[in-house]
Formats: sequence, structure tokens, C-alpha cells
Amino acid sequence: MIYIINGPNLNLLGTREPEIYGSEQFELFFEKLQQQFPETKLEYLQSNIEGELVNFIQEAGKKATAIVINAAAYSHTSVAIADAIKAVALPAIEVHISNIYSRESFRHHSYLSAVCIAVISGCGLDGYRLAIDHLSKTQQ
Amino acid sequence: MIYIINGPNLNLLGTREPEIYGSEQFELFFEKLQQQFPETKLEYLQSNIEGELVNFIQEAGKKATAIVINAAAYSHTSVAIADAIKAVALPAIEVHISNIYSRESFRHHSYLSAVCIAVISGCGLDGYRLAIDHLSKTQQ
Amino acid sequence: MIYIINGPNLNLLGTREPEIYGSEQFELFFEKLQQQFPETKLEYLQSNIEGELVNFIQEAGKKATAIVINAAAYSHTSVAIADAIKAVALPAIEVHISNIYSRESFRHHSYLSAVCIAVISGCGLDGYRLAIDHLSKTQQ
Amino acid sequence: MIYIINGPNLNLLGTREPEIYGSEQFELFFEKLQQQFPETKLEYLQSNIEGELVNFIQEAGKKATAIVINAAAYSHTSVAIADAIKAVALPAIEVHISNIYSRESFRHHSYLSAVCIAVISGCGLDGYRLAIDHLSKTQQ
Amino acid sequence: MIYIINGPNLNLLGTREPEIYGSEQFELFFEKLQQQFPETKLEYLQSNIEGELVNFIQEAGKKATAIVINAAAYSHTSVAIADAIKAVALPAIEVHISNIYSRESFRHHSYLSAVCIAVISGCGLDGYRLAIDHLSKTQQ
Amino acid sequence: MIYIINGPNLNLLGTREPEIYGSEQFELFFEKLQQQFPETKLEYLQSNIEGELVNFIQEAGKKATAIVINAAAYSHTSVAIADAIKAVALPAIEVHISNIYSRESFRHHSYLSAVCIAVISGCGLDGYRLAIDHLSKTQQ
Amino acid sequence: MIYIINGPNLNLLGTREPEIYGSEQFELFFEKLQQQFPETKLEYLQSNIEGELVNFIQEAGKKATAIVINAAAYSHTSVAIADAIKAVALPAIEVHISNIYSRESFRHHSYLSAVCIAVISGCGLDGYRLAIDHLSKTQQ
Amino acid sequence: MIYIINGPNLNLLGTREPEIYGSEQFELFFEKLQQQFPETKLEYLQSNIEGELVNFIQEAGKKATAIVINAAAYSHTSVAIADAIKAVALPAIEVHISNIYSRESFRHHSYLSAVCIAVISGCGLDGYRLAIDHLSKTQQ
Amino acid sequence: MIYIINGPNLNLLGTREPEIYGSEQFELFFEKLQQQFPETKLEYLQSNIEGELVNFIQEAGKKATAIVINAAAYSHTSVAIADAIKAVALPAIEVHISNIYSRESFRHHSYLSAVCIAVISGCGLDGYRLAIDHLSKTQQ
Amino acid sequence: MIYIINGPNLNLLGTREPEIYGSEQFELFFEKLQQQFPETKLEYLQSNIEGELVNFIQEAGKKATAIVINAAAYSHTSVAIADAIKAVALPAIEVHISNIYSRESFRHHSYLSAVCIAVISGCGLDGYRLAIDHLSKTQQ
Amino acid sequence: MIYIINGPNLNLLGTREPEIYGSEQFELFFEKLQQQFPETKLEYLQSNIEGELVNFIQEAGKKATAIVINAAAYSHTSVAIADAIKAVALPAIEVHISNIYSRESFRHHSYLSAVCIAVISGCGLDGYRLAIDHLSKTQQ
Amino acid sequence: MIYIINGPNLNLLGTREPEIYGSEQFELFFEKLQQQFPETKLEYLQSNIEGELVNFIQEAGKKATAIVINAAAYSHTSVAIADAIKAVALPAIEVHISNIYSRESFRHHSYLSAVCIAVISGCGLDGYRLAIDHLSKTQQ
Repeated sequence: MIYIINGPNLNLLGTREPEIYGSEQFELFFEKLQQQFPETKLEYLQSNIEGELVNFIQEAGKKATAIVINAAAYSHTSVAIADAIKAVALPAIEVHISNIYSRESFRHHSYLSAVCIAVISGCGLDGYRLAIDHLSKTQQ
Repeated sequence: MIYIINGPNLNLLGTREPEIYGSEQFELFFEKLQQQFPETKLEYLQSNIEGELVNFIQEAGKKATAIVINAAAYSHTSVAIADAIKAVALPAIEVHISNIYSRESFRHHSYLSAVCIAVISGCGLDGYRLAIDHLSKTQQ
Repeated sequence: MIYIINGPNLNLLGTREPEIYGSEQFELFFEKLQQQFPETKLEYLQSNIEGELVNFIQEAGKKATAIVINAAAYSHTSVAIADAIKAVALPAIEVHISNIYSRESFRHHSYLSAVCIAVISGCGLDGYRLAIDHLSKTQQ
Repeated sequence: MIYIINGPNLNLLGTREPEIYGSEQFELFFEKLQQQFPETKLEYLQSNIEGELVNFIQEAGKKATAIVINAAAYSHTSVAIADAIKAVALPAIEVHISNIYSRESFRHHSYLSAVCIAVISGCGLDGYRLAIDHLSKTQQ
Repeated sequence: MIYIINGPNLNLLGTREPEIYGSEQFELFFEKLQQQFPETKLEYLQSNIEGELVNFIQEAGKKATAIVINAAAYSHTSVAIADAIKAVALPAIEVHISNIYSRESFRHHSYLSAVCIAVISGCGLDGYRLAIDHLSKTQQ
Repeated sequence: MIYIINGPNLNLLGTREPEIYGSEQFELFFEKLQQQFPETKLEYLQSNIEGELVNFIQEAGKKATAIVINAAAYSHTSVAIADAIKAVALPAIEVHISNIYSRESFRHHSYLSAVCIAVISGCGLDGYRLAIDHLSKTQQ
Repeated sequence: MIYIINGPNLNLLGTREPEIYGSEQFELFFEKLQQQFPETKLEYLQSNIEGELVNFIQEAGKKATAIVINAAAYSHTSVAIADAIKAVALPAIEVHISNIYSRESFRHHSYLSAVCIAVISGCGLDGYRLAIDHLSKTQQ
Repeated sequence: MIYIINGPNLNLLGTREPEIYGSEQFELFFEKLQQQFPETKLEYLQSNIEGELVNFIQEAGKKATAIVINAAAYSHTSVAIADAIKAVALPAIEVHISNIYSRESFRHHSYLSAVCIAVISGCGLDGYRLAIDHLSKTQQ
Repeated sequence: MIYIINGPNLNLLGTREPEIYGSEQFELFFEKLQQQFPETKLEYLQSNIEGELVNFIQEAGKKATAIVINAAAYSHTSVAIADAIKAVALPAIEVHISNIYSRESFRHHSYLSAVCIAVISGCGLDGYRLAIDHLSKTQQ
Repeated sequence: MIYIINGPNLNLLGTREPEIYGSEQFELFFEKLQQQFPETKLEYLQSNIEGELVNFIQEAGKKATAIVINAAAYSHTSVAIADAIKAVALPAIEVHISNIYSRESFRHHSYLSAVCIAVISGCGLDGYRLAIDHLSKTQQ
Repeated sequence: MIYIINGPNLNLLGTREPEIYGSEQFELFFEKLQQQFPETKLEYLQSNIEGELVNFIQEAGKKATAIVINAAAYSHTSVAIADAIKAVALPAIEVHISNIYSRESFRHHSYLSAVCIAVISGCGLDGYRLAIDHLSKTQQ
Repeated sequence: MIYIINGPNLNLLGTREPEIYGSEQFELFFEKLQQQFPETKLEYLQSNIEGELVNFIQEAGKKATAIVINAAAYSHTSVAIADAIKAVALPAIEVHISNIYSRESFRHHSYLSAVCIAVISGCGLDGYRLAIDHLSKTQQ
């Protein structure tokens, strides 16, 4: 099982700044995503609370084989989430819908990047698919 | 309706470091504040949890026409709250009871300032009144 | 009496970059402002010269009970004006028409902020009214 | 009563990166710790959520005489927790199991250190015992 | 047609630091890659010379519909390559075999990231496949 | 009409550090300069006072079609002069007699450069001629 | 003879980002330029390769009396080109078509500026003419 | 003749922050100072305007043999005053009444220090006497 | 045997800034300390000379099983002492009487911290006892 | 009694870099200095060893009423000497023979300046005389 | 066989800035050098192009047992050359003719130093001899 | 005569961290070194005390013709030692046994490098031989 963990304000996807984040709701996207990977069970969790993302990762540590995480704003400020990823020692891929490296400079650094095996930034929602595609090929 | 959102430790107002923050409890102040703006419905929310402040802002995005926010310590560290304000696209005014620019240097920068229309810092609790006064005049 | 002191290029108000600074001349605004505070004598002074702003503040030190100052560009570069405010030891409020914190980074820091009791930034010309409102309530 | 407050990922103690954090669960250690200080009531709280740590500290402010806090990752990023400690005005000692000064540079600075009376870093779980030992001798 | 452009020392792939870059030669990988995307013509170019990479990109500007680029060491130092990408105005994806964000700090910044639509870092050679997969889905 | 505005200590030209600034007085040079551009009325103003340079620029905003400005030392410290240039919205060229980029590092940055259309540095007094030559060709 | 040396991507002039760099090809411009200075032989060289620019400068050292150089992106990153200019000890003027000081901050610094006698930035292609005009007047 | 030049807010001496600057007016002090150096003619000038200080220094360049300057706040921000001192090429001593190195960090650097022959900081008004004493012994 | 090594100005303990360092002389404290650890031989050395502290550590390397070191001011500036600790490869605990993290910023960094197993800061003289307590429990 | 304490390499005075430090030996100068202040007993000490300067200051703390200190190179690197001055709580004046603010940038900052009452830099050996003159007038 | 690889502008040796680089051509020096090490075959390569230096190093990786490299200006800017050295995994010594640490600050850092076994800077051409001497003694 | 001066902890050579510094004692190495240069008298001095290294250099200034210095940890922190080298005006070569540029970043800068004629870093003890070899060839 792969955990997909989304951070703050991603529950607004589809309505929030659509020129940056697109106009598709994540729940609908998630259904289609699961259909594309019938052999991999996907679990989707979202929270606006940093510590709950830590909880989700700890839960993944017990139940999942890999993590796809878009910690959104917390990517840039949270040592706690990075520590959780390091603590559970699962392969994790960091995904960003927009290309964080072409936005404000405080979005260029992510505490998570150093503890994830890979970063996919700027591929829109398709980035989640690419991440799972890669994990399902390489992590078994 | 205008949302007034207060961040961490502001629930201690009246007892916490009164030489900096004054000796009046916010709940009592809030009642008097509502009376001064009888034509504007005010809603008051407080939390010590960063992600709940994100939730409050998202809720305001659905119910309010403007936000007055004192994110306290999170002002200086939270990209998530700033992103929420930007996401809901409501006019917001950042208020600080003390003058953050004459305190420790880590309080001089607020992630929220760049996404709020205005900042009022150092007017004590009266800053909330000024913010609502301004919003009720200009945002309609 | 409260001194309102404006810095460089604010004499162009109404014509200069109206998308940032609005289209109202300060002189006309000032008349209406005085009418809103009939019990407080207001004095308005403007100069493009840093040292004359120092002079105005020293004069205020002898004649006024409070200062509302928008030092414009000098806010970001003038230790001399900040020293003058500190020297006269009057309560002063720093006002900026635009929200300086959402503009170029060199406008984010003001030498005056640390020696003023409060900062109001981004409320347009209404910021002057809020400042006087606050001062007339709290400084007597 | 002394509050022992632990931050994010410390609930994984005993399993998480044992070469850094040791292989003992905190709950078991806590029982032995209480036995070593029969005259001092100890209370143990843990959360992965920054704002709940703020809540715990505020609660300590009402019930305890001192705080021993290991805010883990939040030490390096949380102004809110530091503000809470300052607000309750209790003597607090910051404890870190590993020596944070010999790890990644972003772990070298803690917002809490400046508002705690002391810092004990690198003594393993024994650091908690030393902290309580010191507090029980000097804070009465 | 999609251009795949590789930078300095990537001609050593398969022999150079295999613990970081893997043990597969790019030419062999490229053949398999082309087979996976039979409907998209791929063109592969490599050079150790910064200015030739600029030439390749300019050539792509005339012949290709998209670029996948791994500028390797030049990512971190070359404004010229970034300018070329911007000049040809093709959608480009930046690929790195290893996760540059968990290596030396001078590898954390890439001049190319801001002018590419996306960045894929740390997926090994599979990153090229993901990039082409994404481009062939979205750029038509 | 083109305004030529010179800043502090340029009234000493011809005597001040001739190895850097040459030995020709500006007034004599100005006469010859006017003769070379008989179809363009030139106006020359100099002051040692920052605010008067702001005044000159505001005056140019009413009377001139372009500005050639050498703000000398104020180039490196004056936001006020840069704001004035931006406010009058005239094409302006920044001229420096010596090459500021090969002198002390505090002379490498000029607040004016970002609001001028061009910078000519190091051509001696001839830089003024080049600036007017360019303006008279392109700004009509 | 004066060498005009152009750096990377300037071979795209006329098609590349015309809103920044104009819509005229350099070759056509160069012909007209030569006609304006019938008494000065001009030689034009362009390369996208840093080291070839070094070669051109060394060649100029043997054949030319002055250099006009627009190293484009390499201006900001190349110590080698700056060293070459210093080594040949010819008077050189650095030209930039756009005003580099009003663009991204990494374009504000040029290694070449300190070893050239002058910098002309933002005059469009006309900057080349100004440079040759100045050199033909002063370097004989 | 030695010029004593005082900068902004020093006209308030005796009343301004006496715990820092003492309680003696400069004019009275100056009379006593002249009496202590009967063989050296002293001239005293003060202004709050940066550019007038430049004027005073230029005047000194024509009439005096040395300068004692306390540019106060402008010390920390004025390249123009430093340039003036360098331009007139007179021996100058920088005096500060308080010890600027034990105050706010922005007061630790003075642009003037590098162009003066000496700095005397923290000796109160007596610093002026020491400066003249030194100059009258060594500059003849 | 455990070496206790004290650095510069700690010989003044008891008289120096007692509000920071307490009013007890170290020699008297040391006697009581030895009595509390009858099974561990303690050796106390102090010097104001950096290189003698290096000597003491080298001596400890031959005679002791652990080191408790308060290098005082040298903590913040001495690579030599840190190198000595690393060279002798004994477990060492860094002790500071006051909490260095709540004092001037240049006291926040210690070169020794990275080479010691632990740091105890702010526990007053009791910090020495805690250090020995910990060492005697864990280093055998 | 006033202690004059000189730091490293000042024993070479008269022979070392005479263009910077002058050609007079300190011992000879000291005799003349004592003669100029017959009512103040002067004591002169020099060492190349940082810790001995600490010793001298501690000795001064017991025997002297003031200190004149030129710690030379240690000024820029020694917290220990600054701590000693603060510990003995005597008025101290920092003297530098050359003007440290016009030399290499690492000489611009002195740890001692913040704990001395005054700084005299650039007056040559005469700076010692000025320091004692000032101390003998103001410290009694 | 040992490869000696020289970077940009070193082909000008003997004529370029002889006060820094000496007046001997490298080719002549190289002949004498080979004679001093009759048992070690030396190969000499020079290029002004960064990528060709990468090529030379890769070639050395196949044919040589060690590298002596003076990458000149590219030392300070080239990650690509450093990566090549690391990739071929040969012992390499970095040589600089002049002492780069006493020149402009941008020459103080070399990307190559961290991947070479040793650095010899400032010994003139003799540095090459020392490097080969050392390699022939220790690398066999 | 050439002085070889070693700094702190180099007396431990042979036992201290042999994987970095080798396993040979310096005294034994020194004997062999002298035998290799029968025509040059060598003098070896070592101290752990910064000021004694200053003394040694001053002594060398009177007795030696050149200095080979490995100031070890003091290289990175001592202005005093650098000043001594500059004061005695002898040719000096800085030697480091390990390659300081591939170690911790605080070891990358040495105050001595700018005042020595050359730096040899990373050649092990052989670096001393190379330094003397070079000096004996070039300094006579």
C-alpha cells in the first residue's frame, strides 16, 4: 500500500488559485488515479495541521510500503514532518503540483527533499501518477 | 460578516505579560467591539494550533467578507496561514497588539503581511477596532 | 496638537502612480481629515528633504502632543529621522499609504518603526485617520 | 508538580533511529524516573501537534511549578512554543536526547533556549533525570 | 520530437560513481526508452561543453516540441543554458538522476529550475521516462 | 528639453580627485555639450542636498522630456531619488563619470539603476554626451 | 581595429524575447554600424562557448586596439572571460542590450565590469554604437 | 582654522536623551573649548540636512586646515559626506559623544571612519577637545 | 579520574558579575563536589590561556577517563581546544554556568559543542555536578 | 594608577611596518608619557599571549582605577579579553595606533569596543596620551 | 603517466601580467620539468574551454595514474571540472602559480580543492614540480 | 636558517587521529628532513599557545631567512599570528598536513594564507619537505 499525504490548503484544490493549482478536485482525481494502478492499494489523507501529517506518516510507517507526500506550505517550514519521514524509514517521494522553484524564493527550499528519495515538482496532478508509477516499479 | 482570528497564546490575554499585551481579556473586549459596529456581524475564533487557523480562514472564505487576523507567533513562521489567506482571496488586515517592529528581530518579518491588504501593529486592542473600522468603510 | 509629517514625493499624491497611491491630493484630504477631528488641532507639513523632516519633528517636540509620520522613502534609509523621533520623545505613529510589506524587499524595513509606538501600513489615506483616531483616544 | 512535555516523533522512541535516540520507550523510562523522585509529582504529555504543546504548557502554567520540555523538531521552528513558555513564566529546562549541536546545522538553534533557564543536550534519556534533579534542588 | 540533452560527465554513466548514478550506460537505456514511446521521436545529445548545450537547445528550438534536460554540474552554475531554454520557449523538464537536494548544498540550486516547467530529481534513469511520459501526455 | 541633474560633490569637478574624475569643470563642459546638440535644449542643475535632487526631478517631470542624472554618492543610498524618477515617469539615464563597478563595493549598487532605462558608467564626462545622444535618437 | 564580441544566445537576436532584446538581427545591425564608423575597422565575433570568447579576446589582444563585449549570461558567471580581458590589457567596454540592473538580481553583478573601462547597459543595440563612438574618441 | 561640524539632532544637545548625550548645550561648551585653544581659531557649524554638511565640508576645504566632525546619524548612512571629506583632502577626525560601538548594531559602522585620519568615540563632549588637541599637535 | 577544566575569568568566580555567575568561589564548590562523588577522583584545573587549556586536555588524555569543560569565552572562538578534545578522544561534557543561549548572539555558538558528547548550559555551578553524575553513570 | 596594556606584536613597535605604526619604540614613548602626567601613576604591560592580557586586566582590577588597552590583533578575535574587562568593571579606553576602520575589514570589529567606555583609533601613539588625559579628567 | 592540465589564459603565460604569473612560457618550462622526472611520463594539455578540461580529465582517467591541474579561473566557478575529477577517481593535485588566497576574494574558493588530495598555491611554476615530486613519491 | 613552527595539538602527531594526520611523530620526521637538506639549517619549534607562536615568529625574524608554519587550529582564528608574519617580513610558507579544503567549512579559511607567499595543503608530512625544497631554491 502507498500512502498519499496532502498538506494544508490542498483540500481547496479545484477552487484555490486555479491558474497555479489547476481546476480539478483531488478526490475525483484520486479515484482515477487508483484505477490506473489496480495492483497497488492507495490510501489518501489530507490535513491542514502539521502534527496530523506527522501522525499520518507514522501510520504509514506501520501500514504502507511507500509514501507520496505533498506537504504544501509545511514543506518549507517543517522539520517535524521531515523527521517523521526519516523515522519511519519508508521510501517517500515529494510531489508539488506547481513548480516551486519558479515561485517565491521561500518556496525553493523544502526540509522534506533531503529525506525523500525523489522530488517531482511542476507536473500538476500528474506528478502524483508519476510518483506512484516510479514507486511501483522500483520499490518492491 | 468579518472574522476575527487570533493565534497562539492570545487566549491568555489579560494575564500574559500584561506590560506588553495589556490586562484586558479578549472576550470582554470583543463584546464591546461588536457594540461599536452594530451593522457588521463579527465572529471571533482563537486557536493555538496553526492548522486550525488555516481551517478558520477557509471557513471565513465561505462565510465572511473580510478577515482581521492576529496570528501571533505563527505570523513569523507560517507559510500555511499565508497560503490560506491567499487561497480564500478575502481582504484581510493583519493586527498585532504590541509593535512587533520594536521587539526581537525574529518578530520583524511576518509571512502574512505580503498577502494582507494592510498591517496595524502596536495600537493595542484598539488595533482590532481600527481594522474593522477601515474594512467596514472600504470593503463593501 | 498633532503634527502630520509627510516625506519625499508625497507632494505628488494624486498624480504619482495612482494605482499604488490613489488619486486624491493630500491637501484636499487634509481638510476633510481636520473636519473629522474638530477637537484636535492638526498641523500638516511636507518636505522632500530629509533634514527638514528632522526639523519638523523637532518643532513638533515643542508644539505638539503627538506625531503622525509618513516618511516615505526616507523610512527605509534614515537614521536621522528615527533619532529625531526618539529625541523629542513624543508618541508617534508611522503611516504608509501602500502596504510596504508586499512591495520591494528594501521597503520592508523602516528605521522609524522601532521608535514609533505603532505602524499602520496599507490602509491608503484612511491610515492617517486611523492614526489620529487612535492617538486622540489614547494619548491625552 | 513538574510537567514533562515531549514533542513530535518522540512517541516513536525506542524504535526510531535507535543509534541516535536509544532503544528505550519513554513510557517505561518515565515510570522509573518517577520512582527516582518520589517527592516530586511528575506529569508526562506528548504530542505531534505544535499547538497542543502550547496547550500543555498553558496547562502547566496552572498546575505545575516547573517544566521539562523536549520539543524535538519544533524547537528549531516554533516561536509559538517559546512564547507559551514565556507567557506562563515557569522555570523550564530544555532537554534533547541527542546532542543537537553535533547534528545538522538547522538543529543548532532552538527558539526555546532563550526562554528556558537551562539547556541539557546529548545526555540521552538521562537528561530528563538531570533536569528534574536540578529543578527539584533549585526551584522551591 | 523531444530532445534529451545531457550535460558534463554523463557520458561516463555506468562507470562513474555507480553508487550515486547507477551502473547502466545511457546509450543502452536510451534505446529501451525509445521503444517505450514508439509514437514520440526522441533525439539524444550529450556534451561536456556548456556552450554546446546552448547550441543543442537552440537546435531543439527549431526541431523539437519539448526538451528533457539533465545539465548535470552546469545546472548549478550556468545562466547561459537557462537563458537558452527561455529563449527557445519550449516546454522543458529538468531531470536529475540522483536527488540533488540530499547532496552538497551547492547542488541544491539550479538556474534551470525557474525556466523549466517541471523538475524530476532522484528517480534514477527512470526520471527520463517519467519526464517523457508527462510531456507526451500534456504537450501536444 | 532634457534635464541634466548632478548630485553631491560634483560641483567640485575639476579640482576633486582629478585622477578619478578628470580635471574639467562641469560648467565649461556643459557649454560645449549644448553646442553639440543644438536641437535639444539642455538644462543643468546641481545640488549637494538629496531632497533638492528630488525637487529637480519633480520639476523635470513638468518641463522636460528626459533626464540625465548622476546622483553621485546618493545613487548608492537614496530610495527617495529613485522614487522621484519612478513618480515622474520620464525616461532617465544614469551616468557615472568613473566606473563605479571597479571601485569600493558599496558603489556597485545604485537604487537608481532599476528605475532608469539605461546606465552609462566609466566614460568620463563623455558619458553625458552619449546619454543625450541616445535620448535624442530614441525618445521623441 | 575594434573587436565586437557577443556571448551566448545573442545569435538569436531578433527572434529571442523581442520585448527584451528587440527585433533586429545583429548581422544587419552590424553592417549599418560599420558604415557609421568608416574610419574604424570593426570585427564581429559571436560564440555560445565561454572558452571561445576567451579565445576571441586573446585574438583581439593581438589584432585590435579596443574591445566592445557583450558576454550576455557569461557576464554573471565567468571569471575566465574577465581574466582574459585583464590579460590582454586592451581598453574594453561592456555593453548590455537590456538594462541588467532592472532584471533578476543574479544579473546585477558582472565579473567583467571591474576589468572594463566602462559599462553601457540598457541602450539597446544603440549601446554598441555609443561604445564605439566613445572608444574612437578617447582611445588612440 | 579648524572646522567643527555637527550633524542632525545635535542642536538638541543638553535636552535630548541626557543619559546618553549629557546635559550641556553645545554652544556653551564651544565657548569654553575655544578658550582652551587660544592659538587655534575654531569655527562651529551644525545642520540637520545631510547636503548642508557636505557644503560645510566643502567650505572647510577652502578655509580650514582640519575638520572635527560628528555627523551623528548620517555617519551610518551617508556616502555623500564621506565623499566630501575625501574630496577636500583635509585631515579630519570623527567624533562621537556616546560610544557608538556599544549601541545598536546599525551604529557600529560609519562611512566616515575610512576617510578620517582618526575616530574618537565615547569620550562625551571631551572628545571634541581631544580631537583638537591632537590636530593642533600633529597637523601644522 | 575526571578532569574539570575551567577557562578564562572563571578564576574570578564569586566576585565577577555575581548576578550572572553567582557568588560562590569555585575552589570551595569543588571541595563539596568531590565529597558528593567519593568514588570518582576529580581533578580541577583553570587557566586564562587558551593553549594551557589545550595542554590540560592533552594531560587528561593520558590520565583521565572523562572531561568536564567550561571553556568560557574560548568556547566561542577556539578551534584549538575543540581539536584537542577530538584528539584525545575522551568523553567530554561542555558546561556553562549561565545559559549562553539567552545572552549575546556571539555566545550562542561554541566550537566545543560538536566534539563533546553533551552540553549543559544554565544550571549554575550545579551543572558541574550534573555532568559528573551523568559521566559516572554512563562512562565506565 | 592607570594600567596601559598592549597586545601582540606591539613589542616590535618602532621596527614593525613603520609606515603604519610609526618609528618610535613604546618604552621610550612611555617614559615621556609618564612625565606628562606626573600626578597619575602609570603601569605598562605587554604580552603576545591572549591569556596573559586577561591576567593583566585582572591584576588591574585589583590595583588600578582605569585601563588603557590596545589589544592589537586580539581586539578582533578575543571574547576572553572583553570578558575580563567586563569582569573587573573598571573604566577602560580602547586605543589603536592606526585607524582600524580604514584597514582590512576584519579589523573593523573589536570585541572590546562594546565593553570599553571609549575608543580612540588612528591618533598614533598620541592616542595613549589622549586616553589618559580623558581618564584623569573624568574618572576620579 | 601524469597529466598536467592547464586552464584558461594559461596559454598566455610569459606575456600575461608577468608581475603575477612570471615571464616564462609554459612549454619551455614543461620540457625542463620532464627532464627532472625522467622516470615519470608527463603529458601536457591546455584549453580555454571548460568542457575540454572535463574531456582531458576523462582522458586522464583512462591513461594516467595522477593529475596535476591548474584550472585557473574555472577553479572558482566550475562544478563540472570538480565532478570530472571525482568521477575518474585519480589522485589529483591542484596547483596555482600565484597565491590565490592573497588575491581577490572570489579567488579564495576553488570547487576543485575538495576533490583533490592536495593544493599547492603560490610557488610559481615550481608548484608543478613540487606536485609531481609528491605524486611520484606517494602514488604508485 | 629556516624555522619550522608547528601549532596546537601537532605535538600529538603520530597518535592523534592517524587516519587524518598519519602515524609518524614529528620529531622523528624532523631528523630525516634535516638530513635531506644538509645545506640548510632547520630549527623546529612547537607550542599549543597562540602567543608563543607569535614569539617564535618574532624570533625567526631575527635569526632565520624563511619560515615554514603549520599553525593548525590557530590558522583559522588568529589575526595575531598573521600580524607577526607580516611584521617580520620574512618569506613564509603555510603547510597543512591534511587538505583543509576538504574538511569542515571553518577550516577553509586561514588568516595566514594572505600573508604567506605560498600554501601547501594535503601533502601529509611531505608538505614540509616541499616547502623547504621550494624555499631553498627561491629564497637566497
